[in-house]
Amino acid sequence: MHTDLSEEALRAYRSAQQAPADFDAFWQLTLQEARAAGGTVTVEPVDTGLATVDVHDVTFPGYGGEPIRAWLRLPRGARGPLPAVVQYVGYGGGRGHALENLLWASAGFAHLQMDTRGQGSGWSRGDTPDSGPAGPQVPGVLTRGIGAPHDYYYRRLFTDAVRAVDAVRGLPQVDPARVAVLGQSQGGGIALAAAALVPELTAAVAHVPFLCDFPRAVVVTDAHPFREIADYLAAHRRSEQTVHRTLAYIDGVNFARRARIPARFSVALMDAVVPPSTVYAAYHAYAGPKELDVWRYSGHEAGGPDDDEAALRFLRERLRP
Amino acid sequence: MHTDLSEEALRAYRSAQQAPADFDAFWQLTLQEARAAGGTVTVEPVDTGLATVDVHDVTFPGYGGEPIRAWLRLPRGARGPLPAVVQYVGYGGGRGHALENLLWASAGFAHLQMDTRGQGSGWSRGDTPDSGPAGPQVPGVLTRGIGAPHDYYYRRLFTDAVRAVDAVRGLPQVDPARVAVLGQSQGGGIALAAAALVPELTAAVAHVPFLCDFPRAVVVTDAHPFREIADYLAAHRRSEQTVHRTLAYIDGVNFARRARIPARFSVALMDAVVPPSTVYAAYHAYAGPKELDVWRYSGHEAGGPDDDEAALRFLRERLRP
Amino acid sequence: MHTDLSEEALRAYRSAQQAPADFDAFWQLTLQEARAAGGTVTVEPVDTGLATVDVHDVTFPGYGGEPIRAWLRLPRGARGPLPAVVQYVGYGGGRGHALENLLWASAGFAHLQMDTRGQGSGWSRGDTPDSGPAGPQVPGVLTRGIGAPHDYYYRRLFTDAVRAVDAVRGLPQVDPARVAVLGQSQGGGIALAAAALVPELTAAVAHVPFLCDFPRAVVVTDAHPFREIADYLAAHRRSEQTVHRTLAYIDGVNFARRARIPARFSVALMDAVVPPSTVYAAYHAYAGPKELDVWRYSGHEAGGPDDDEAALRFLRERLRP
Amino acid sequence: MHTDLSEEALRAYRSAQQAPADFDAFWQLTLQEARAAGGTVTVEPVDTGLATVDVHDVTFPGYGGEPIRAWLRLPRGARGPLPAVVQYVGYGGGRGHALENLLWASAGFAHLQMDTRGQGSGWSRGDTPDSGPAGPQVPGVLTRGIGAPHDYYYRRLFTDAVRAVDAVRGLPQVDPARVAVLGQSQGGGIALAAAALVPELTAAVAHVPFLCDFPRAVVVTDAHPFREIADYLAAHRRSEQTVHRTLAYIDGVNFARRARIPARFSVALMDAVVPPSTVYAAYHAYAGPKELDVWRYSGHEAGGPDDDEAALRFLRERLRP
Amino acid sequence: MHTDLSEEALRAYRSAQQAPADFDAFWQLTLQEARAAGGTVTVEPVDTGLATVDVHDVTFPGYGGEPIRAWLRLPRGARGPLPAVVQYVGYGGGRGHALENLLWASAGFAHLQMDTRGQGSGWSRGDTPDSGPAGPQVPGVLTRGIGAPHDYYYRRLFTDAVRAVDAVRGLPQVDPARVAVLGQSQGGGIALAAAALVPELTAAVAHVPFLCDFPRAVVVTDAHPFREIADYLAAHRRSEQTVHRTLAYIDGVNFARRARIPARFSVALMDAVVPPSTVYAAYHAYAGPKELDVWRYSGHEAGGPDDDEAALRFLRERLRP
Amino acid sequence: MHTDLSEEALRAYRSAQQAPADFDAFWQLTLQEARAAGGTVTVEPVDTGLATVDVHDVTFPGYGGEPIRAWLRLPRGARGPLPAVVQYVGYGGGRGHALENLLWASAGFAHLQMDTRGQGSGWSRGDTPDSGPAGPQVPGVLTRGIGAPHDYYYRRLFTDAVRAVDAVRGLPQVDPARVAVLGQSQGGGIALAAAALVPELTAAVAHVPFLCDFPRAVVVTDAHPFREIADYLAAHRRSEQTVHRTLAYIDGVNFARRARIPARFSVALMDAVVPPSTVYAAYHAYAGPKELDVWRYSGHEAGGPDDDEAALRFLRERLRP
Repeated sequence: MHTDLSEEALRAYRSAQQAPADFDAFWQLTLQEARAAGGTVTVEPVDTGLATVDVHDVTFPGYGGEPIRAWLRLPRGARGPLPAVVQYVGYGGGRGHALENLLWASAGFAHLQMDTRGQGSGWSRGDTPDSGPAGPQVPGVLTRGIGAPHDYYYRRLFTDAVRAVDAVRGLPQVDPARVAVLGQSQGGGIALAAAALVPELTAAVAHVPFLCDFPRAVVVTDAHPFREIADYLAAHRRSEQTVHRTLAYIDGVNFARRARIPARFSVALMDAVVPPSTVYAAYHAYAGPKELDVWRYSGHEAGGPDDDEAALRFLRERLRP
Repeated sequence: MHTDLSEEALRAYRSAQQAPADFDAFWQLTLQEARAAGGTVTVEPVDTGLATVDVHDVTFPGYGGEPIRAWLRLPRGARGPLPAVVQYVGYGGGRGHALENLLWASAGFAHLQMDTRGQGSGWSRGDTPDSGPAGPQVPGVLTRGIGAPHDYYYRRLFTDAVRAVDAVRGLPQVDPARVAVLGQSQGGGIALAAAALVPELTAAVAHVPFLCDFPRAVVVTDAHPFREIADYLAAHRRSEQTVHRTLAYIDGVNFARRARIPARFSVALMDAVVPPSTVYAAYHAYAGPKELDVWRYSGHEAGGPDDDEAALRFLRERLRP
Repeated sequence: MHTDLSEEALRAYRSAQQAPADFDAFWQLTLQEARAAGGTVTVEPVDTGLATVDVHDVTFPGYGGEPIRAWLRLPRGARGPLPAVVQYVGYGGGRGHALENLLWASAGFAHLQMDTRGQGSGWSRGDTPDSGPAGPQVPGVLTRGIGAPHDYYYRRLFTDAVRAVDAVRGLPQVDPARVAVLGQSQGGGIALAAAALVPELTAAVAHVPFLCDFPRAVVVTDAHPFREIADYLAAHRRSEQTVHRTLAYIDGVNFARRARIPARFSVALMDAVVPPSTVYAAYHAYAGPKELDVWRYSGHEAGGPDDDEAALRFLRERLRP
Repeated sequence: MHTDLSEEALRAYRSAQQAPADFDAFWQLTLQEARAAGGTVTVEPVDTGLATVDVHDVTFPGYGGEPIRAWLRLPRGARGPLPAVVQYVGYGGGRGHALENLLWASAGFAHLQMDTRGQGSGWSRGDTPDSGPAGPQVPGVLTRGIGAPHDYYYRRLFTDAVRAVDAVRGLPQVDPARVAVLGQSQGGGIALAAAALVPELTAAVAHVPFLCDFPRAVVVTDAHPFREIADYLAAHRRSEQTVHRTLAYIDGVNFARRARIPARFSVALMDAVVPPSTVYAAYHAYAGPKELDVWRYSGHEAGGPDDDEAALRFLRERLRP
Repeated sequence: MHTDLSEEALRAYRSAQQAPADFDAFWQLTLQEARAAGGTVTVEPVDTGLATVDVHDVTFPGYGGEPIRAWLRLPRGARGPLPAVVQYVGYGGGRGHALENLLWASAGFAHLQMDTRGQGSGWSRGDTPDSGPAGPQVPGVLTRGIGAPHDYYYRRLFTDAVRAVDAVRGLPQVDPARVAVLGQSQGGGIALAAAALVPELTAAVAHVPFLCDFPRAVVVTDAHPFREIADYLAAHRRSEQTVHRTLAYIDGVNFARRARIPARFSVALMDAVVPPSTVYAAYHAYAGPKELDVWRYSGHEAGGPDDDEAALRFLRERLRP
Repeated sequence: MHTDLSEEALRAYRSAQQAPADFDAFWQLTLQEARAAGGTVTVEPVDTGLATVDVHDVTFPGYGGEPIRAWLRLPRGARGPLPAVVQYVGYGGGRGHALENLLWASAGFAHLQMDTRGQGSGWSRGDTPDSGPAGPQVPGVLTRGIGAPHDYYYRRLFTDAVRAVDAVRGLPQVDPARVAVLGQSQGGGIALAAAALVPELTAAVAHVPFLCDFPRAVVVTDAHPFREIADYLAAHRRSEQTVHRTLAYIDGVNFARRARIPARFSVALMDAVVPPSTVYAAYHAYAGPKELDVWRYSGHEAGGPDDDEAALRFLRERLRP
């Protein structure tokens, strides 16, 4: 069943989320500090037994210069600098196995799949710890450090995401002028942040992006992971303002208003995890050229391979692999 | 939690399943008729936008000569006849999207992914109808035509599986002496059938194979799809013997006793869908060289990419792509 | 809880469903072909041990002239031609056991309870197979052959329903001028079809009829069996128009607009299976004399014996047994 | 799945339940007092519109002489005294609607369906209140008055059941020498009590009888209604002995040991409500001639109409309607 | 998620509930009869091992003069008459254990915690039976005696609640001019009744009060215990008017309109058990000075210790312990 | 239902868990480092409005000298040094609200309720962050840092628990020779660790202790939080040995073998969260004087207030408040 407003109401809906006054300064300083922390990118070939794709185990400096893992997959025998796709993954997962996720390299892109700090023990495996303080919190990462924007988990993760693009642009196999970001669910939310925070990206793909329009999201769904916020506030009953202030710094709606590159969205009207209105909130707020695929009968899996096919078309047109 | 017997008891467990006296004659006649029905194999290239893998839309004659769909994926630019992997898919799914499942072609194999007649509307899409009578039955295919071995759904599906190998062996890009079959869950059950029914295959991979040891399976799990059998018998209370007689013709235990090629199995001890004892039943009965990976903490997803990695090693050693 | 619109909104609600231009021609041709296929009606007495009711095992020609089973129950010792009630059953069930469902014969009617092709393995047993192609589909019958109106399962089932009336009218114990149709849930949906397709019926009873107002139904409930449609479209994401076009040929709203005989409806406001608005959609569209019982606190069981009591009154007034 | 011991273990299982020393005296006194309380039986015809069955609204004196409701259904036009079937109903239900449950009268029996005091608001409706003290208790009736055998709900209900036979034997249409008792689930447990407490009954039918072998039942299932006992003891942690002492007075195992008339049992091996071992406990303890139907794939619905068919054969042989 | 209307709509919502014409006379007569029945209050010290709080086992005459149990907890060594807090408990519970619930005595109040007749076998234990007729009813107490206001369970329970205040006012340790009533959920509903029925109370606290605004409550939630009403009406389909008439006599909205003492409410917007609109219904109707704490992210646990803290402040200001 | 072995088997069961060779050295070094890190204890009075109990907000140095919060509750007006009870709390909770949990101070003990680092956002609130690396992990704390004993979350938490006793012993109001530790579930597991690690405690209470006998626990229950381990291993399939090696350092069985002070245990045979066999494992291994209360019908709430009452008796006898 449709899990949110009617389609007509979704098309008319606009989020009430507002960016704090120092939103841009906050992120400018955060990224400046991360880049100042330095660190090196290492690229180790992996013996996978594959014949058409080369996989490398990458470590790059993320938030605070901390080592973040990734897989770099390249089409074997490609010549000349390649356009790159940087992919972020969904909640609970990590970069997974070297043998998974061969689509983007098989399509001719340099494909960097970033690990997700501290997650990576659910539907796919990860290898990167989180460093931050894990204050009184609900299980998961959505309320880790939520007492202050500076301590919040997603400040660190979004910084990793920006630095992943920095890392891929520095690789000899990659054309730094042709880089796109892509993700689904949490990965889509990260992609929106990257679209706003990284200069001169070519395109962004955000399928059923999570982490958008928190003021509405936390009161219209009981599903995890959004529910972690409500669970936290059910225990910390006097912290409502503090929590919403922190969330405003990482809300995809606020990033969407600042992005200018072409973007592809998808939304699923039977999605019980990411309420469709929160995706429309980000889509309507998005300030660059944009397209939206509406899956009327899908849950949070959204378009699945059909979203991939559309994203492949979208990225091939813009990145010309 | 462990969903079945203790590990010690699993290692000691042997199935009580027996093959009917005419089991071999039944299948010999079935395949003979299918081959006699003739039909042609068509191979149409698909424009996927991929750079390293070529995908073809294949139609081959299955049971009764009926057209069965498949994807053929080939590593682009490969020279000389390739070893082939024929893959069967899990319950409810179909051959899926052309862009999915790039592993085996990327590893240098000709990869034929067979569609599953009449299924293909659940976790992945299919394009092939079933032709048989759909008698009073429980939703799903497990009780379709279960009133007689001749009418049973899996007689048709297993015949398709054998004919898929016939088809792939006739392709100019394939070395017919180097063909393996592979599948997970229902796909694993089909692979066991193919291992017994197709002469001179090189190897078989059956990850958490479904469709084994029905006499035990139907009384030790409430989970679908095994449960379809119990649901049927809860309505058709006098049909117990008829149903078990039909099932004996397609039980993986009976095929395992007839197979001689090297086989890799996996089993998951927290599997609530395919009880581990039913996998051990097939493994213990298997008459050829065999190996078994035991995933102690996995559910029906079993080894996931770790199973893929091990299967890739197993198949590379035997098929030398 | 009330599962749909407020009572006020339900009273105002009208369906957006539209009949295809060739709707009437489609059904005229379908029935013409079925009647042309011929076939005979057989009536075998059953030894039930009952004293006041005689039960007969009936086989009559349905869609394509295929043999369809039914129970015929007659009050023992009745003289003269009897009025008849033809009953259709709910989703998943079949004609059941000869000893069940003695109400209508005990009330003095000839009672024909039609089996449901291919179902009959759930809450009650059946004995009739379905013949049609079972294309890629979701478990159940709601998406069997949904790719084209001609192949769709319900085309066959509704034809059986019409032919059941033909059969009962030809029985020597029955007065062909006094025949009513009756059903609950799926049976109610079939009764609406029969009310529109069979000339000169006396009355129809449709309790919480299923299969009405698909455009709304598939987006307002997650419950099976309506959900089969959404599950299908979640896999076959590009088939929305095709599916809705097929459904328009069997939607109870379109039959209701064509029916002219007196009809009794019931609706349950806490029904989670058949959303009340879809019943109101059919009720409001119904073009003949009509009455509606509203059960404010019932789920899909609706009025149960209270519906039976009201239907008995309704049918006795009109059929004069 | 099978919900209890293996079939082999079920056949070997014997209950540890013991009757208190004053068990027989307790019931003798209880029934003596009830009969001493007097009261009259009233029989009012109901206008149902049926043609072959006459239904009467009966009130008879039960425990304490309190008025208990029942339906009396008779085959219309029957001559001479009829054999009678007294039916008790399952947990939560009542005597239901006059139009329901026509099987036994249609088969030529006088059929008295006793209402269940204080229940009758669940799957079927009732019309009789309970009079006893409702002490601190879990919702339901299983712990009502459980603090003492004298106050316990089932002392009152079983007394009603005995007095129902007294009442039916006094009806002019009934042959008092040909009376059987019958029930399913709770109704089966009541039938076992009546079989032991009422002299000279002809036969008893207990399908999946509830209320047997409490010492085992309360620790092997989480399902309601047995669970009410565990819920009570989870709150009243020091009352274990008191509760089990009370239950021993109404445990079907203790009645089974005292019964001598022919009895038919059924048991369902996938029954999650009444664990099969508790049925075997009563069956093995039963001291009269007995038969048992084992439904291997059924849940608590057990044989449904197949149980009815077998019970009809069983009762026709013994009661000769 | 928010389980009911939007906050804006909640603030505007007013209940349609109406008091019957004889509402005041009904309660006046009920209480008059209860007081006329007499009975004595007994107070027995309990040896708890506590050092700062003395606990007494109290029995006082309730409805019909029947003995009702309670705990009286007093701060040890307190001098002079104390203000008192009379507490009523939530659905399913009883007065619990002597060692529980030390807050109010530790804060300097005489604290009487009334037992709940017939309940007390769920989340906390009780020791008091109910005496009334338990007519055909759904498990629980919400439909016990619902066929007539005079027989209804809550008539008896609310009378107990009034008589508890009478009892506490007669204790030598208590200042009868300084007595408050307090409760959560069902306890809050009882407190609203007491606030209206007992003259010259000092204050009332009703946290997430249950038993308010039945006309809306029964159609907007599926959760127990409100659901007992709908379950009853699903079986007793013709009793809608009778049931709603009875409920009007105990609906918190009708009591709220008659209360004049200062009251504190709380409501939880994610409460799935007591729909927030039904609390707002009582709050808006409340005729005395009032305050409301809104917990936006809590379920039925509402403010928990934060509600306690606020209630302690509220009561200390008014009762000056 | 009983969730684990039969009572007879439970009494015979012994755990296979083994302590690593350096277990004692590991903890000796850990505690030595923690004490060397220094830090100060601060005690701030809280204005609660209570009359008989004084509450203080305590901060003490825990693992790494990090500030850990606690509540100190004292009976008002007590003279002379008091015996102390140090309480640890269950999984997900924190020290809660100052007004909660008044039992132990009301009974005359100094009561220190330790906060739980990083948790405290579930059923009760906390105020203390965790400092450690939060590596790829399952939501919750059970797999945080599980890759190495040194990094593991419970190394830090158990160190806090030891240091809490150090802190309470240094308070002027406390007699350092009369200190007991107490907890339920996770709190019970911590109490077992403290009983082994802290010299010269007077007694320990471990109600349904969690964190015992991991080798069995992780394969016999699906319930959280034990399930976090299996979930982790389902993703990190090759880490079984690493994980079990880390767990051996914090398993309650290994602490039980080293404890010598009198201990009280409780176990609940219907506990689905902490399998009873794992409690018996610790109880049987416990090397000091011990007692065990068996709650046959309770779930994880175990004895609730009845456990409290028994623990109060146990502690009053040994600590003489």
